[in-house]
Amino acid sequence: VDAPRIAIDAMGGDGGAATMLAGAALALSRSPDLRFLIVGDEAAVRAELSRHKALAAASEVLHAPDKVSGDDKPSQAIRRAKTTSMGLAIQAVKEGEVAAAVSAGNTGALMAMAKLTLRTLPGIDRPALAALMPTLGDNDVVMLDLGANTECDANNLVQFALMGAAYSRIAMDIERPKTALLNIGSEELKGTGELKEAAAKLRAHPTLPLEFVGNVEADRINRGAVDVVVSDGFSGNIALKAVEGTARFVTDLLRRSFQSSFRSKMGFLLSRPALHLLRVHLDPNNHNGAVFLGLNGIVVKSHGSADAKGVANAIAVAAKLVRDDLNRLIAADLADYSAASAAPSAPIGSAA
Amino acid sequence: VDAPRIAIDAMGGDGGAATMLAGAALALSRSPDLRFLIVGDEAAVRAELSRHKALAAASEVLHAPDKVSGDDKPSQAIRRAKTTSMGLAIQAVKEGEVAAAVSAGNTGALMAMAKLTLRTLPGIDRPALAALMPTLGDNDVVMLDLGANTECDANNLVQFALMGAAYSRIAMDIERPKTALLNIGSEELKGTGELKEAAAKLRAHPTLPLEFVGNVEADRINRGAVDVVVSDGFSGNIALKAVEGTARFVTDLLRRSFQSSFRSKMGFLLSRPALHLLRVHLDPNNHNGAVFLGLNGIVVKSHGSADAKGVANAIAVAAKLVRDDLNRLIAADLADYSAASAAPSAPIGSAA
Repeated sequence: VDAPRIAIDAMGGDGGAATMLAGAALALSRSPDLRFLIVGDEAAVRAELSRHKALAAASEVLHAPDKVSGDDKPSQAIRRAKTTSMGLAIQAVKEGEVAAAVSAGNTGALMAMAKLTLRTLPGIDRPALAALMPTLGDNDVVMLDLGANTECDANNLVQFALMGAAYSRIAMDIERPKTALLNIGSEELKGTGELKEAAAKLRAHPTLPLEFVGNVEADRINRGAVDVVVSDGFSGNIALKAVEGTARFVTDLLRRSFQSSFRSKMGFLLSRPALHLLRVHLDPNNHNGAVFLGLNGIVVKSHGSADAKGVANAIAVAAKLVRDDLNRLIAADLADYSAASAAPSAPIGSAA
Repeated sequence: VDAPRIAIDAMGGDGGAATMLAGAALALSRSPDLRFLIVGDEAAVRAELSRHKALAAASEVLHAPDKVSGDDKPSQAIRRAKTTSMGLAIQAVKEGEVAAAVSAGNTGALMAMAKLTLRTLPGIDRPALAALMPTLGDNDVVMLDLGANTECDANNLVQFALMGAAYSRIAMDIERPKTALLNIGSEELKGTGELKEAAAKLRAHPTLPLEFVGNVEADRINRGAVDVVVSDGFSGNIALKAVEGTARFVTDLLRRSFQSSFRSKMGFLLSRPALHLLRVHLDPNNHNGAVFLGLNGIVVKSHGSADAKGVANAIAVAAKLVRDDLNRLIAADLADYSAASAAPSAPIGSAA
């Protein structure tokens, strides 16, 4: 594979072009063969590029007269797909000018535009938003869907499981990722009808490139025992945000505790390196880069508040998924699944 | 009101009769006017009572030849309602022999038996499981439903809001609790149809004894800005367990960090009082006692792993709800809501 060229939406995210280009420059310094198409207000982009010589040499600039704001509704953003930096970055993926797009802008708008412009892969009914979360184990866990689909049927969930496992195989180098459905009990009879049906379908296909381990409860997501957690977008978003909010809650309490006395302030100073380790492990910038899985093209969402390091991580995720050809992997797994489902020996009926 | 008499299921919970009776003894030492009906294997109960003289003097013992185990399905438990300690404790509530029951046993069995034996309050279609969670603010937040109902319609959610607010008024002494729906965005158009319809109904009744503040995302539950968080039992259970699991995850990481070097071990020793504050704030025992709201009787679920202090807290919750007559409050609020819904000036149609 040639070195991947990646479109950067320079105008999204809290830090705007300065942060996005600093992130691209950092990603380039780590992977010098990367190439970029920087999409945004040309004057603003050129001004930032003048501060990053190597990046300027590795980049082309595409002027976008407009940008998507955080308040734009998806429908408003879609109408301005031909003029906004986000819209043009996705368009460049569609036209094969770049291998992937990275944006830190409005998630709903990015999802709607990516879906409309790139369309879903054959055999995929709906794309899903996936992200990596830290665990107590050696590997991050892949969670999906994180909000692209409020309601899902059993086939959607099975497709999410296949896509999430493909992502885990590439991002974490796990051969048969342990894959579970997010549920409110570990027993088989728990949860909605959709979950029970999805479990039956996954259990009926023991040759999939994943190990289906049944249900996982939300308090076990980050123990490191499962590699992929599958849910509808509503439950997944609730779980993701509850995890993020609680990590912040506990660290806020910890800070407050350390300020409660002179002795604990001294303890804090001594403990600083240990607390730094904790912060590094929990820092969202170190796990940045949510991926829209299931589209004809790679689109990565960087967190709006990510710093340059976070943006560089999101770009690295995009580059890895391009190099390891995530979408070819998903297409092959789906074909195997469909073939196995159609075979007369399959224990339960056909899929999708 | 007379001093409340409370039935204790002595056989539920990881610690069995020893923990349950130690918890009751602690609750009695804090509220000497409490009285108990201890339900369980008589020999085991008497043996423990011999170690708690004051409790023995304040208690009557009801022999139960059988008990519900953690593996029993709700249907199995229901068939043994007349012989198990859990079943007889709930039966005592129904017959007016006690004002409330406290059990640390199998949640699903307790819920099913309580619903079947006590039935729902007039105007309540389904009971909900509610609990208190710590926040950064001055008050705990009430969350419900935490797993009693996998799927809910808009009227269920409105009833949960009224019941949760009544619980917050009593448990937290807040006059008009800020009440929100758990959702995946703060904007009005987010989420399922049931949530949008419930929001419209709550917004149409500005005279309710609660302040409806719209949607809350799962990362804001513990910021202290809302007093009551309303959800279906699936989402609520996911959020609750994600919060519990992440709190444990961060403290596990913290412990690991402190062990990473000699210097950080010294820091840990100095910081111990500060970390103790953190532990007290997060300790589930200090927030123990989930309540089944909406039944003709008070039933409190103590956590299976709660220690004597946790059991004492669950008993204190039950006693407070009895003394302040939670169910009278809920019935009155429901009557007001129904009257307002039926009035011709109400902006939207009637409520179930």
